[in-house]
Amino acid sequence: MKVLHTADWHMGKKLHGYDLLPDQAYILDQILKIAKEEIVEAIVIAGDLYDRSVPSEASVRLLNQTIADWNLTQQFPLLAISGNHDSATRLATGTPWFNQAQFHLHTRLKEAFTPVEMGNSQFYLLPYFEPVDARIYFEDSELRTIQQAMPKVIEKIQESFDPDKKHILVSHFFVAGSSKTDSETKIEVGGLDGINGKLLECFDYVALGHLHGKDALKMANARYSGSPLKYSLSEKDQTKGVWIVDTDTMDFSFRTLTPLHEIQELQASFAELLDPAFYTTINREDYLSILLEDRAVIPNLMNQLRQVYPRIIQVERANGFETAVEKRLKKENIKEKSPVNLTKDFFTEVSQNELTAKQKKWIEEGLHTILKKGGEE
Amino acid sequence: MKVLHTADWHMGKKLHGYDLLPDQAYILDQILKIAKEEIVEAIVIAGDLYDRSVPSEASVRLLNQTIADWNLTQQFPLLAISGNHDSATRLATGTPWFNQAQFHLHTRLKEAFTPVEMGNSQFYLLPYFEPVDARIYFEDSELRTIQQAMPKVIEKIQESFDPDKKHILVSHFFVAGSSKTDSETKIEVGGLDGINGKLLECFDYVALGHLHGKDALKMANARYSGSPLKYSLSEKDQTKGVWIVDTDTMDFSFRTLTPLHEIQELQASFAELLDPAFYTTINREDYLSILLEDRAVIPNLMNQLRQVYPRIIQVERANGFETAVEKRLKKENIKEKSPVNLTKDFFTEVSQNELTAKQKKWIEEGLHTILKKGGEE
Repeated sequence: MKVLHTADWHMGKKLHGYDLLPDQAYILDQILKIAKEEIVEAIVIAGDLYDRSVPSEASVRLLNQTIADWNLTQQFPLLAISGNHDSATRLATGTPWFNQAQFHLHTRLKEAFTPVEMGNSQFYLLPYFEPVDARIYFEDSELRTIQQAMPKVIEKIQESFDPDKKHILVSHFFVAGSSKTDSETKIEVGGLDGINGKLLECFDYVALGHLHGKDALKMANARYSGSPLKYSLSEKDQTKGVWIVDTDTMDFSFRTLTPLHEIQELQASFAELLDPAFYTTINREDYLSILLEDRAVIPNLMNQLRQVYPRIIQVERANGFETAVEKRLKKENIKEKSPVNLTKDFFTEVSQNELTAKQKKWIEEGLHTILKKGGEE
Repeated sequence: MKVLHTADWHMGKKLHGYDLLPDQAYILDQILKIAKEEIVEAIVIAGDLYDRSVPSEASVRLLNQTIADWNLTQQFPLLAISGNHDSATRLATGTPWFNQAQFHLHTRLKEAFTPVEMGNSQFYLLPYFEPVDARIYFEDSELRTIQQAMPKVIEKIQESFDPDKKHILVSHFFVAGSSKTDSETKIEVGGLDGINGKLLECFDYVALGHLHGKDALKMANARYSGSPLKYSLSEKDQTKGVWIVDTDTMDFSFRTLTPLHEIQELQASFAELLDPAFYTTINREDYLSILLEDRAVIPNLMNQLRQVYPRIIQVERANGFETAVEKRLKKENIKEKSPVNLTKDFFTEVSQNELTAKQKKWIEEGLHTILKKGGEE
């Protein structure tokens, strides 16, 4: 049977303040299209359906619509788990009714031990869990980390292995030796270095969620699908998509996704950026990280840039910041300047105006008071 | 067929800071017990399942467990709507899968117009809605209030009336002329005076939610079930329970519920309240509103009372507050006293001690500085 493996949707995530829901709706449509083209018999979603434990109403609406469409209208069996970003309790809403429609959403550790049998395979849906869940389930107060718990979990899972079937694990953890990006949770639960990959060797395929790059892990039988969208600038060079796994041959192939808006890094001068000859050659609708070549202070910079580029996620200086003040200060001895004169210079530099007589008087009085107080106390 | 009508569960509600979830779990068990005893064929829940649009995880867990138990394990058909306290979007999670199991939870206006047919009845599940929902549904920009929208809603509902069936409306609104208590939302949407009861005359029974007293409305064919628990002190004299409606005879009877902890008003002196001869005669575990007969200041009052009474929701003075200071001030001319002497008197009254020489000195110095500064600026 053919299975589509995706994960880390992070519904409701914002990218530097930009609402990604339209991008997410767009990419989910593409995933559905691929599922139809490939005629997969199940869709696996390996955790982090939501970005937050309390998602916005708009995120709830989009996820509910998507899942109902895929499962009830398009009739795809769904195999899903909660990830570390999801509230297992909230995500569990409705799950007792879902199974009848071949929608299996596991949110509790104990649910991992009853495989979902489908086609030639047994699917073990192991949600993200905390060490405390393992302590309670195994009645073993020594289980303090996920690393300690995982061998027991895998052992327990193997008890129900049917030797005539393929064994697929769906899980949401950091596997030791994988490479991370900025948008994944940095504090690993249980600390330490993640799950030992050796533990996963008993499975025919491990459909992982948590890390956002499809190449984060080098193992023959285990894969991160990665997120369907680039969720941080550090992911800009990753290829995003889904895995298509054939559980008969255990071949897998990667189908790439094309986002509504790419993340792009631009390096140019301010003048170039505002020049139609420049900006008509690039996709201005992309999420842009701009490396500005200018070194001067540019008043009202962001507003001017945003009139041309609606999705700027950051602006950095390619050559650092050097203003006329800095240049002059290199020559002048800053220590010899009075606070009043430094303030005057700063004002002139930023505002491009000289201080009026009144402004000069206020600054002199203000600085006098401050410096006098400082000396007194 | 026999139907149980309840509403206004307000899962997660707090009563003066006390978490009511244990009380709610307890009362829901009783409702289930009544449903079994009466062998009802459906349970109607007329809105406000949750107290807040974003309920706590504990509230979500309890509601999910309750509903799954009633519907899937106990096999009761459920007919429910969202109320003004619920987030219709969040509450809708899972609903497309529920219908197969005879669990009908309507959260959108348009869902009201497709009756759920069960036994001899057509159930119209009309969730709480805002005027904007009616404007969009009827494509009529003139609909500015619920009062304007409701005639169109009822007219539309009547279009699908089967004359051979009974017609039951489940709804969550304020019906004009009903009487309110403190725990209901005070601002009525659309302003004005609620829905005209005449509009409801075309139904055989109207199962209402929103108001918390079962006797809030005097109509032959329409009832508020009221909340299953007392959710404010103003509800202390209400009888809480559920309606059992027979849709063949259109008889209805009220089955009362007994809470885990009652709300009680106590009037006594402080000495009595702490006297075992007094407190062993009453249920100290109740939620208590205490009318204290003492007029004196009692240091550490609440902590002392809470050692005997764990659930105090308020303490008021039965005879007002009159301390020895007040009495003396009536005789003395307060205007003639110096601030220093007033402060000394206050200290003595509250602490039952005289000021030490050092304390006197501090107060004199402190007051001197304050009064001097006040004069200078």
